[in-house]
Amino acid sequence: MKKLISLTEAESRLKNGEIKGWGLKEGKLYRECTFPNFSLAFGFMASAAITAEAMNHHPEWFNVYNKVNISLTPHDVGGLSELDFELAGKMNKLLTNL
Amino acid sequence: MKKLISLTEAESRLKNGEIKGWGLKEGKLYRECTFPNFSLAFGFMASAAITAEAMNHHPEWFNVYNKVNISLTPHDVGGLSELDFELAGKMNKLLTNL
Repeated sequence: MKKLISLTEAESRLKNGEIKGWGLKEGKLYRECTFPNFSLAFGFMASAAITAEAMNHHPEWFNVYNKVNISLTPHDVGGLSELDFELAGKMNKLLTNL
Repeated sequence: MKKLISLTEAESRLKNGEIKGWGLKEGKLYRECTFPNFSLAFGFMASAAITAEAMNHHPEWFNVYNKVNISLTPHDVGGLSELDFELAGKMNKLLTNL
């Protein structure tokens, strides 16, 4: 079973800078990313897609041109789970290495 | 300059079945696609991304797991352009060949 995280705990971990660039929006982890162009934006998405599939934990995301807005939440239960923080952390590593 | 298409013309062309599966939503061409799983959904997005980049005409799209919702519009002008119909047609071909 997925380890659930309370909003209070999530806020505290975000405040501590565990996953920089992420906030909370509608109870989900949320980050907006801007890239120099579409190719780089989609390149990040492709890398993140492989990571997400390997974790069997998938983002909700919106892309237009050089922007990618990402929401992370466990879809089968409410709230947030440890997997959301894990995927956010892995996406941050991808963003750092681009 | 991009050839603009009026909403009346767009509705007429959609009714004639020029780009099956597409409708109008908030003045944009719109299609919702469902795939058997995330990999196939993202595989379609990757193919469509390459097509879009080659046309220098990019979609607004949202993905969660096996669903991809696509909106097409020229971003620099209002309304719809010939490029939107062209990209929709190319995406339909990709969907047929998956």
